[in-house]
Amino acid sequence: MPTEIADHADRLLPADPRVREIARDLHAEVEALPIVSPHGHVDAAMLADDTPFPDPTALLISPDHYVTRLIHANGVPLEQLRVGGSAEVSPREAWRIFCAHWADFDGTASGYWLRQEFTGVFGIDDSTITEDRADELYDAISERIAAPDFRPRALFDQFGIEVLATTDDPLDDLEAHRRLAEDPTFTGRVLPTFRPDRYLKFGPEFRQVVEALVETVGGGVSGYAGYLRALQARRGYFIDHGAVSADHGAHTPRTLRMDKSEAEALFEKGMTGTATLEEARAFEAHMMYQMAQMSAEDGLVMTVHPGVHRNTHTPTLERFGPDTGHDIPFAVDYSSGLRPVLEDFGTVEGFHLIPFTIDESVYSREIAPLAGFYPSVFVGAPWWFLDAPDAMLRFRAAVTETTGFTRSSGFIDDTRAFCSIPARHDASRRVEASFLARLVAEHRITEARAHQAIVELVDTSPRRAFKL
Amino acid sequence: MPTEIADHADRLLPADPRVREIARDLHAEVEALPIVSPHGHVDAAMLADDTPFPDPTALLISPDHYVTRLIHANGVPLEQLRVGGSAEVSPREAWRIFCAHWADFDGTASGYWLRQEFTGVFGIDDSTITEDRADELYDAISERIAAPDFRPRALFDQFGIEVLATTDDPLDDLEAHRRLAEDPTFTGRVLPTFRPDRYLKFGPEFRQVVEALVETVGGGVSGYAGYLRALQARRGYFIDHGAVSADHGAHTPRTLRMDKSEAEALFEKGMTGTATLEEARAFEAHMMYQMAQMSAEDGLVMTVHPGVHRNTHTPTLERFGPDTGHDIPFAVDYSSGLRPVLEDFGTVEGFHLIPFTIDESVYSREIAPLAGFYPSVFVGAPWWFLDAPDAMLRFRAAVTETTGFTRSSGFIDDTRAFCSIPARHDASRRVEASFLARLVAEHRITEARAHQAIVELVDTSPRRAFKL
Amino acid sequence: MPTEIADHADRLLPADPRVREIARDLHAEVEALPIVSPHGHVDAAMLADDTPFPDPTALLISPDHYVTRLIHANGVPLEQLRVGGSAEVSPREAWRIFCAHWADFDGTASGYWLRQEFTGVFGIDDSTITEDRADELYDAISERIAAPDFRPRALFDQFGIEVLATTDDPLDDLEAHRRLAEDPTFTGRVLPTFRPDRYLKFGPEFRQVVEALVETVGGGVSGYAGYLRALQARRGYFIDHGAVSADHGAHTPRTLRMDKSEAEALFEKGMTGTATLEEARAFEAHMMYQMAQMSAEDGLVMTVHPGVHRNTHTPTLERFGPDTGHDIPFAVDYSSGLRPVLEDFGTVEGFHLIPFTIDESVYSREIAPLAGFYPSVFVGAPWWFLDAPDAMLRFRAAVTETTGFTRSSGFIDDTRAFCSIPARHDASRRVEASFLARLVAEHRITEARAHQAIVELVDTSPRRAFKL
Repeated sequence: MPTEIADHADRLLPADPRVREIARDLHAEVEALPIVSPHGHVDAAMLADDTPFPDPTALLISPDHYVTRLIHANGVPLEQLRVGGSAEVSPREAWRIFCAHWADFDGTASGYWLRQEFTGVFGIDDSTITEDRADELYDAISERIAAPDFRPRALFDQFGIEVLATTDDPLDDLEAHRRLAEDPTFTGRVLPTFRPDRYLKFGPEFRQVVEALVETVGGGVSGYAGYLRALQARRGYFIDHGAVSADHGAHTPRTLRMDKSEAEALFEKGMTGTATLEEARAFEAHMMYQMAQMSAEDGLVMTVHPGVHRNTHTPTLERFGPDTGHDIPFAVDYSSGLRPVLEDFGTVEGFHLIPFTIDESVYSREIAPLAGFYPSVFVGAPWWFLDAPDAMLRFRAAVTETTGFTRSSGFIDDTRAFCSIPARHDASRRVEASFLARLVAEHRITEARAHQAIVELVDTSPRRAFKL
Repeated sequence: MPTEIADHADRLLPADPRVREIARDLHAEVEALPIVSPHGHVDAAMLADDTPFPDPTALLISPDHYVTRLIHANGVPLEQLRVGGSAEVSPREAWRIFCAHWADFDGTASGYWLRQEFTGVFGIDDSTITEDRADELYDAISERIAAPDFRPRALFDQFGIEVLATTDDPLDDLEAHRRLAEDPTFTGRVLPTFRPDRYLKFGPEFRQVVEALVETVGGGVSGYAGYLRALQARRGYFIDHGAVSADHGAHTPRTLRMDKSEAEALFEKGMTGTATLEEARAFEAHMMYQMAQMSAEDGLVMTVHPGVHRNTHTPTLERFGPDTGHDIPFAVDYSSGLRPVLEDFGTVEGFHLIPFTIDESVYSREIAPLAGFYPSVFVGAPWWFLDAPDAMLRFRAAVTETTGFTRSSGFIDDTRAFCSIPARHDASRRVEASFLARLVAEHRITEARAHQAIVELVDTSPRRAFKL
Repeated sequence: MPTEIADHADRLLPADPRVREIARDLHAEVEALPIVSPHGHVDAAMLADDTPFPDPTALLISPDHYVTRLIHANGVPLEQLRVGGSAEVSPREAWRIFCAHWADFDGTASGYWLRQEFTGVFGIDDSTITEDRADELYDAISERIAAPDFRPRALFDQFGIEVLATTDDPLDDLEAHRRLAEDPTFTGRVLPTFRPDRYLKFGPEFRQVVEALVETVGGGVSGYAGYLRALQARRGYFIDHGAVSADHGAHTPRTLRMDKSEAEALFEKGMTGTATLEEARAFEAHMMYQMAQMSAEDGLVMTVHPGVHRNTHTPTLERFGPDTGHDIPFAVDYSSGLRPVLEDFGTVEGFHLIPFTIDESVYSREIAPLAGFYPSVFVGAPWWFLDAPDAMLRFRAAVTETTGFTRSSGFIDDTRAFCSIPARHDASRRVEASFLARLVAEHRITEARAHQAIVELVDTSPRRAFKL
C-alpha cells in the first residue's frame, strides 16, 4: 500500500512537463545500474554473520544520528530514542515517539529516505505513520525483519549493491571482510577503508592507540619512525584485504611539510600529552601531508572531509557517545590548505585526492578550480548535511561549469543506515537526471550527450575516482 | 487604479502554471491570517498617541534607510532626502527626487514593498510614479494621510496586525506600551523588546549609559555586580510590560565564559575607557554569554544578529547619524561563536536562541545543523538585505532539508516603515507558498501536508519561537 | 552545417515556454547591440598589425588557460598542448588531443563558447569534433584563418565590437594603441588599461621594474616620492592614449592608509628585498589606497579582482610560465578591506571602484550592500570561473534585490580568446534575458520595464561604470 508520493515515478524530478520527460528518460538510463558505494559506515560483520536485524528501533532510529538529531531538536531527550545504548524506554516506546514526530521530517532528506525505505523495503505507506498506528507498524516491521529474505545478505543482493566500502580502524583485523571475500556464496565486494583519524590527532587516547599500533606492526622500530612505518604497514594490510581508499576526518584541510626532526619532536609531545593546541594542529596537518605521500606511493585513494567541530555538546557526548547529532560544520580553506600536497603530488599519476565538504561556498570558489586543473583532484560529492536533493542540485550547478562531468567522485551515501542505501542512490540519480534535463532543455548539451553524461556521473565517475 | 503587477493575484508565485496553481492554493490558506511581527522598529508612541503621519516624505522616505541608501547610491546626497533631520530641501522637493529615481528600485525588495504600499494602502498605480507627476502624487498621499482612517491605530487594525514588537532601550520607561496595554479601545498587542547593545559594548557612551542604568536600578550595588543586577532588573521590567524577547546586535556571534574577576577587571577598563579593542570584543562576547544565561533564567527569547560593520562611512555618520544605509555585512562564524552558550544552555527547557544572519553561507553550513540538533535554537528568518523574494527562497532551500518546517523563527519584517508591514508579510507568505508548491510538484511532500506546513511556517513558528 | 544546439535560437533561455517567450523578446532587444568590452587580454598589436592568425592550435588552445586546464585535469600534460611555447608536439598533434578530449568540455562555460565559435565563426558543427575527424577540422580551420575576411580587423568589425580594452604594463609605450587610434581605416576603439600589479607587490622583480619606471618618468626624483610621481605620470600617459581604467589584481581587497614615513621605510625594504611577507602585504594594501586616491584625482576607473592564489603549482609555473590554469581562488573580505578607501573617496564624484570576485559568498553579503549605498561602487560582473550561465544567473539573483539594475559594471569577458568574444557577450545577454523574463513572469517587473532594464544591463551599465 504505497503512498501517493513515495512510489511516484517522477518523484524529485523537475515540475516542468517537458523537462520532466527528458529527466525521466535520463533516469531510466541509470535506474537499474548496480550500486557502487565507495564510502559509508555499514558494519562488515553484519554482512559476514548475516544475522537478522534486531528490532525496528535498533534498525531505523537509535544508531542513525541523521534521524535522532531532528527528533531531539523537536524536544525529545536522546535517551527516549535509545541512543548510545540507553535503555530508559523500550524499543517499542521509542518507536512510538518516532511515529509521533514523523511529521517533523517533512521536507528533509532523512524524511525522504525513510519514506522510501518504508514503502520500498517494508511496503508501508508513510501516511500510516502516526502515533495511533505506531504499534501496528512496529509489529509489521518486526515481522518483516524476522523473515529470511530480510537478512543483510539477501538485502545486499536485492538492493543491487555491487561494491560497498566500510570504514575501519587501522588496527581492525578485517576478519569480517576476509570471510566475505572468501565466501563463495557471497558475490558482492565489501571493501575496508583505512581511517586513521585517531592515530593522527593528539588527544587523550593518542598515546594508547599509537602504542598499540607500533607494538603490532612497528617491526621493532620505536618513536616517530616506527609510527610512520606502522601506518604504512597497516595501509598495506588494508590493501591486501581489498581496500581502495584511506579516509580522513581532519579538523581542517591544512597540510604541512615538516622537517623530520621537528615532526619527531612534536610526535614526542603528542605522546607525552605536552603539545599545545597549535602544535597538535600542526602535527595533524603534517600527517595529512604524510598520508598524501603514502597515497601517492601505495595508491590508496585519499578522501578528506574536514571542517566539522565534532561532538560540540559535551553533556551529550559524555552520556551518549560520539556521532550523536551535534557535529557542527565550519568554513574551510582548501585553496591554501591543500597547496603543499598538490605542489608535490598534484600531478603524480595514480594519486587521487577527493575533498568532501559541507561548506558550500568552496564548491565554485575552490574545489571546482582545483579539480579543473589537477588531474589528481576529484570533486567530492555533497555529503552529510548536503546529500539532499536541493543541495545536490546546487552542487552540480556550482561545479559543472568549471569541471564538466568527468572530475567527480560519484555519489557517496556515507550511511550507517543499511536499508536507506537504495533510496539514497536513487535520489542522487534522480537529481543528476534533473540537472542534465535542464541543460538539455536549455540547449546546453544534446540529449544524446546527456545520456552518456548520466552514466558517467552515476557509474563511471565512482569507478574512476576510487579505482574500482 | 492599481498597476498591472501590483495587484496581480499571482505576483511572486512561480511561473510554471501547475506549480503556480498549487502555490496559489497554499497562499490562500494563510493569506488572511493575522500578522505576527516579533521584531521591528516601529515606534510604540506613534500608536499610543495615534497622531496623523506628517507628510509623504517623512512617512515613506527620510527615515527608511532601505529606501534612501539606493537613491544615494544613484548619486543623490542624503540631505536632498531629508535624512537625519536635514532640511536643505522641502518635503515636496525630496519627494520629487524620489519620484525621479523610482525606476532605480526596479527588481529590488524595497521597490516591491513600496509598490505594494502605493497600490494597497494609497490606491496609487506605480506606473504613475514619475518626476512629472510627483506633485500630484504628493498631494494625493498628503490628503490620504490626513484622513481619520489613516491614523496609525486604524491602519494597525486594517493591516490585520495581532502582535507587533518594538525595539527599545533598557532604560525606556515603556510608557507608550503601558498606555496601549491599558487602553480598552486598542486590542492589538504591542510588545517591547529589550535591546541592550550600547550597554554591552565599550565605546564613547558606555560609561554614561551604564552609570544611568546602575543609578536607576542597581539597587545601591555598584561596579560589575550592580551592572549585572541592573540589567537583570530591567529585563524583569520589560517582561512585566509584555516583552517576550531580548535582541542583540553583537559585533560577531562569539560568546565567552569568563571568570568573575576577569569580567570585573574588563568592566572597569570599559568604564574608564582604557580597554583595548580585543578586550572590548572579549567583554562583549562575555556579556552575550551573560545575556544567554539570563534568558535561560527569565525566559526572554534571545535574538542575535551579528556580522555587520555599523556606520562604515564616518562622514555620513557624523552628518546624518546612524542607520543611514552604510552598515555593511561581513562573514560570521556561528559554529565556534555560539558553542559556549549551547554547551551550557542548548538543551535547557525554555531557552530560545534565534540567530539571524546576512551571511548566506552559514544557512546550510552552520545554522541549520545547529537548529537540527539543539532544541533551543530556532533558525532566524532572512533579514535585512535578505528579506527579499529570491533570497527568502534560497534560505528555505538551504535550511529545510536539514531542519524541516518546525525549527524556524517565522518571518521578521525588521521594519521602520509601518505601512510596508502588510506587503512584507504577504511577500513572505507568497515565497513560502512558492517553495512548498515546488516540493509538492516534485512529489516531495503531499499537498495536504504542504497546507499544514504553510500554516506552521507562517503562524505556528513565530508563536512557538517567540512564545506568543 | 551548424549543430542542433549551437545554432538553436533559444539556447540558454529558460525551459518554460511562457518564460522563454518573454526571454526571447528581451534578448532580441539587445542581440544586435554593439559589443562594449571594458576589460580583457586581447593584444592590441594583433589588431594594429592585422596579421593573420597562425594555426588552429595557437588560435584556440595553447594560449587559453580556460581550455588547457581542463584537458590537463583529464590527464594530458601541458606540453602536449604546446602551452608556454612548448614544441614537443606539432600544432596538428595538439589539435588531435584537443578533439579527443572535446567531450570533457560538456556542460562547461568554455565548451559553450568554443561550440559557438566553431559554429558561428568557422561554420563547424560541434558533433564533428572527434578524434577521427581532427585532421579534417584542422585543415578546414587552417584554410578559414588564412582567408582575408578572417584577419583580426575584419573579425573586429564582423563581431560588432565598438570598444575593446586591453590590459597593459605601465611602461608599455602603447604604440599599437596609438597606431589604431590614428588609423582612419579602423573605426573601433581599442583602449589601453593601466595594470600596475608588479610595481605594487614586493617580489623578485620589484626592484628592477620600479627602477625602470622611475628612470623613465620619475622626473629626476628618486625613492618613494619618485615612485609615486612615476606611477602618476604613467597613468597620465595612459589617459592620453585613451585609457579609462586601471586594473588591479591585488592579493586581497585590503586597503590601508599609511604615514608617508612608514610607507617610505617599507618601500626601501621592498627595494632591498628585506621586507617580511606581512610588510609586503601592508605595502600592497597601502598602494591600493594610493591607487584609489589617484583614481579619485585623475578619473581612471579602478577595477579590483583580488582573492586568487596565483600560479599555485610551482613545477608548472617554472616550466610553462604564469596564467597556465593553476590560479586558485580563496575567500575574501571586501567589507573590511575597502573601508579606508570608501571612507575617504566613496562619495567623491567621478571616483568609480568596481570590485570583481570569484568568491560568490560576497555578492549578497558585501558587494551588493556596498554598491547599494556608495555612489562610487559598481558591482563587478561574474568573472573568470563565474562568467558562466548558471553562475551569472546566481549572481544576478544575489545582487539585484539589493542594488536594482543601475549599479553594475556590465559584462566582462576578460578573455585572451579573441574569437570567443561574441559568444561570451551573447551568452551574457541571454542570461540577463532569462533573469528578467523570470521577474516578468513572476509579476515583479512589467514587461515594458524589463525591456528598458536589459538595455540598461547590457549597454548603459558598462558605459556608465567605465565612463565610455
